[in-house]
Amino acid sequence: MITRDIMRDTTRDFQKYYNPKLRGELRMDTNTNVLGSNPAAMKYLKHLEIELDGYPNTYSDGLRQALAELYGLETENFVAGNGSDEMLDVSFKTFTNWGDNCVVPVPSYTLYEYFVSMNGGKPVQVDLTDDFQLDVDGICKADAKIAIMPSPNNPTGNTFKQKDIEEILTRFKGMVIVDEAYGEYAKNSMLKRVNEFENLIVLRTFSKAYAMAALRVGYAVTNLNVSDMMNSIKIPYSLNKISECAAMAAVKDQTFITKSVRMVTNERPKLASGLERLGFEPYPSDSNFILAKCPIDHSVMVSKLKEKGVLIRDFGNKRRTENCVRMTVGTEELNDYMLKKISEVLEESK
Amino acid sequence: MITRDIMRDTTRDFQKYYNPKLRGELRMDTNTNVLGSNPAAMKYLKHLEIELDGYPNTYSDGLRQALAELYGLETENFVAGNGSDEMLDVSFKTFTNWGDNCVVPVPSYTLYEYFVSMNGGKPVQVDLTDDFQLDVDGICKADAKIAIMPSPNNPTGNTFKQKDIEEILTRFKGMVIVDEAYGEYAKNSMLKRVNEFENLIVLRTFSKAYAMAALRVGYAVTNLNVSDMMNSIKIPYSLNKISECAAMAAVKDQTFITKSVRMVTNERPKLASGLERLGFEPYPSDSNFILAKCPIDHSVMVSKLKEKGVLIRDFGNKRRTENCVRMTVGTEELNDYMLKKISEVLEESK
Repeated sequence: MITRDIMRDTTRDFQKYYNPKLRGELRMDTNTNVLGSNPAAMKYLKHLEIELDGYPNTYSDGLRQALAELYGLETENFVAGNGSDEMLDVSFKTFTNWGDNCVVPVPSYTLYEYFVSMNGGKPVQVDLTDDFQLDVDGICKADAKIAIMPSPNNPTGNTFKQKDIEEILTRFKGMVIVDEAYGEYAKNSMLKRVNEFENLIVLRTFSKAYAMAALRVGYAVTNLNVSDMMNSIKIPYSLNKISECAAMAAVKDQTFITKSVRMVTNERPKLASGLERLGFEPYPSDSNFILAKCPIDHSVMVSKLKEKGVLIRDFGNKRRTENCVRMTVGTEELNDYMLKKISEVLEESK
Repeated sequence: MITRDIMRDTTRDFQKYYNPKLRGELRMDTNTNVLGSNPAAMKYLKHLEIELDGYPNTYSDGLRQALAELYGLETENFVAGNGSDEMLDVSFKTFTNWGDNCVVPVPSYTLYEYFVSMNGGKPVQVDLTDDFQLDVDGICKADAKIAIMPSPNNPTGNTFKQKDIEEILTRFKGMVIVDEAYGEYAKNSMLKRVNEFENLIVLRTFSKAYAMAALRVGYAVTNLNVSDMMNSIKIPYSLNKISECAAMAAVKDQTFITKSVRMVTNERPKLASGLERLGFEPYPSDSNFILAKCPIDHSVMVSKLKEKGVLIRDFGNKRRTENCVRMTVGTEELNDYMLKKISEVLEESK
């Protein structure tokens, strides 16, 4: 009988991913866009004229051109693929040899360590400071091939200081990945500065502000030298034709993005105040979600809330986010509803 | 200045993939289905009702259930993903440690060595016999973690003998991947026998007979033990929702597949005869393409034919397929047109 001993050394304890059984709950656990499907992408899909039998463009040139126009960069600054998850995989695959260290901040996105280990690397945890900012010295001193950091950070919600990221780009002897999955919501971005640094890779996704998670589209932005390496490694035509064209349509019409960002900017402080009134301690956020310390036990809060039909994400068992939960910023109506259900849980737990 | 020295050791010489500049040529170079887009998938897309903001099902359960019904297996026998290319990547990622040998037959699919090296493994070439069958002893004697074989084989077109594959499954001390990308066209398949062997992985794609290359859908079929390992390694929800639903529609209506296979079975011998009449030496095929030795220089044939608006694939510079070209089996009209253009090239080369 074949056992898990036959698997790659670094992956033998891997389990399947977060996959909650759903019964129509309100999903405030995935930080997707609560305003619903991207209208420009939907319009494209409603009038779909496409042939299915041929392969997509090998390197998604259409989408890369649209992005180049949006950001004032060149097509060849971009690597496009099947969600920013593929871009994470390609980044580690391109630059890590077996056993190479990769710096992962704590707390940050849970899947980074999975991608590092899956590609034969070793995650090196460097804790964020008490106010969830980068430990610049800790990262620069690490003997590592890659340093990755999400900004805005997930699950804490804050962006990192630009000068810290710049210092790491200069001092760290390896590739630096700045994952801007929630970049549309933040004031600061490294995206347009990719030609300034030889080791900077910025990642973006269509799954959050763009409201297109169902279509799996993401991209990396980097200098021409590095993008050539990454495009040589990525699986040819990994982005399907419909998702590529829908993403092009969405890029060319920024109305919905502007509206979505404005909604979050307006509602986020109100949700934070509401949480504070209920005894939570919310952390400052530059993105479309809030991390908050629970006034009662985190697992009770999350499970009782699920019974009431609202899903939020539990980070209470993880180091540095003890007893914390993370929730998406909704519309005024959704937030009021969520706060009402939370207050019911608190009442019932007294 | 960062050079390719920063890349993974095994990938530094990687170049971008086959990506011909197109000017509306007839594509007989990719072995997709010449009957055009899958009608059941198109029907689904014409009446698309879908939300884009949420993530797809984490492990594509809908498609896996539909496949389980089609083949009389269990949902958990399947691993679904973004084209069979992702399934190749996942297979090597799941089972290879750094430097592990992987057996790749010669000649076979050009991308296998790319996937092996990309994942830190070492391709070990084992030549096929003179009649393009498996060298069973050569493969079983190889000190390797994985043996991969396409059946029908690409680019030669023939299936391998079932008893040879069975013998390898029993004697080879590692995982055996049988890539049935063209399996719908062949009489023999290992797909329904995955529960008999502890080390068998069968790969299938929607890009060939299913005429859905644009949507990037593929799957692996294997026993429950191995599928659990592979699903733990694959990127969660890597298959987008539209492609998954279109593939489900296509699986549930096999009319088009039957028609497509019948067309190829009817036209393939006629195309082979036509090629023979023009001085080619075609090899026996169980799939929707033919490999043939050219009566003139292969590169002249391919480039002149491209000038005349017909693309075929050049294998003439590769070992074991010297001076050979590969072309898709078209409809009667397409084949006649292609043969006419080929005869013009031959005339002009006299």
